[in-house]
Amino acid sequence: MKKNSSDDTIIVGIDPGFGRLGYGAVLYEKKQARCLTYGCIATPVRTPLDERLFTIYTELLHIFKDIQPQRIAVEKIFFYTNKTTAIQVSHARGVILVAARSCAIPIIEITPLQVKQALTGYGRAEKQQIQYMTQKLLHLPVPPRPDDAADALAIALCAGTLLHIPV
Amino acid sequence: MKKNSSDDTIIVGIDPGFGRLGYGAVLYEKKQARCLTYGCIATPVRTPLDERLFTIYTELLHIFKDIQPQRIAVEKIFFYTNKTTAIQVSHARGVILVAARSCAIPIIEITPLQVKQALTGYGRAEKQQIQYMTQKLLHLPVPPRPDDAADALAIALCAGTLLHIPV
Repeated sequence: MKKNSSDDTIIVGIDPGFGRLGYGAVLYEKKQARCLTYGCIATPVRTPLDERLFTIYTELLHIFKDIQPQRIAVEKIFFYTNKTTAIQVSHARGVILVAARSCAIPIIEITPLQVKQALTGYGRAEKQQIQYMTQKLLHLPVPPRPDDAADALAIALCAGTLLHIPV
Repeated sequence: MKKNSSDDTIIVGIDPGFGRLGYGAVLYEKKQARCLTYGCIATPVRTPLDERLFTIYTELLHIFKDIQPQRIAVEKIFFYTNKTTAIQVSHARGVILVAARSCAIPIIEITPLQVKQALTGYGRAEKQQIQYMTQKLLHLPVPPRPDDAADALAIALCAGTLLHIPV
């Protein structure tokens, strides 16, 4: 994996989730955004809550130490129709923020609206449109999968725009 | 502070909160429940979210390592009328669970109903009644304050009942 040099910026985007948490690392170098890696941390349903959260925590620490990003971009949570989901995702989100802080990496919080506007210029863009633009902007041969990882890459790209990193 | 001997059990109760998180340690020895310590972790409002959560995490690790409990009892979150509060408290709760798991201390999750029933025998007991019984059961000269710490001690006492620790 390409490590960070002094002029480069690496942003890790995170799509906060409990059962499945997506992550994606984007490297900005020579005015180009390049995908370093992406993936998903999945925790088994029948495992106790604290064990699942601890798995997320330790996996994230491992990823952050390996990739050494300058920023971590995490999607904000505003609204879920399902209360249980909102509570579970917020549990995971607390763990993500502490993991980032443990590695002394600054966080940028991103709204879904910001992702849509940054990638497509349209605040009501569909998921497919975001995924199409993510693939295009990162010059990926195939659409990133699963969806959680694709969302995470989109969040990282949005953070790059908000931080005015030239591409 | 009295440290744990082989026959004793220490339970740390936690009232999960974001701005203020209550904790209270109960020692069970010689068929008596005794209050070891209680208090509150408060984080300043104008501090960034990740810093506040990291403060909660590091303070809890310090408390757990100092007290060395056999169990950590944490109140479950079901319902908040305010969605923002639910999300914030859930962030803190995720951090609490990871801190406990980091110290390899088993967790017991407690519902507000269980606290009311265990301490007063009545599922719709008022807050004052719970605080009165907490003070009485722990032979405290004054009611524990602030409320967050009192709630945490009640949660620890409830856990003792659910785990059938004789008092």
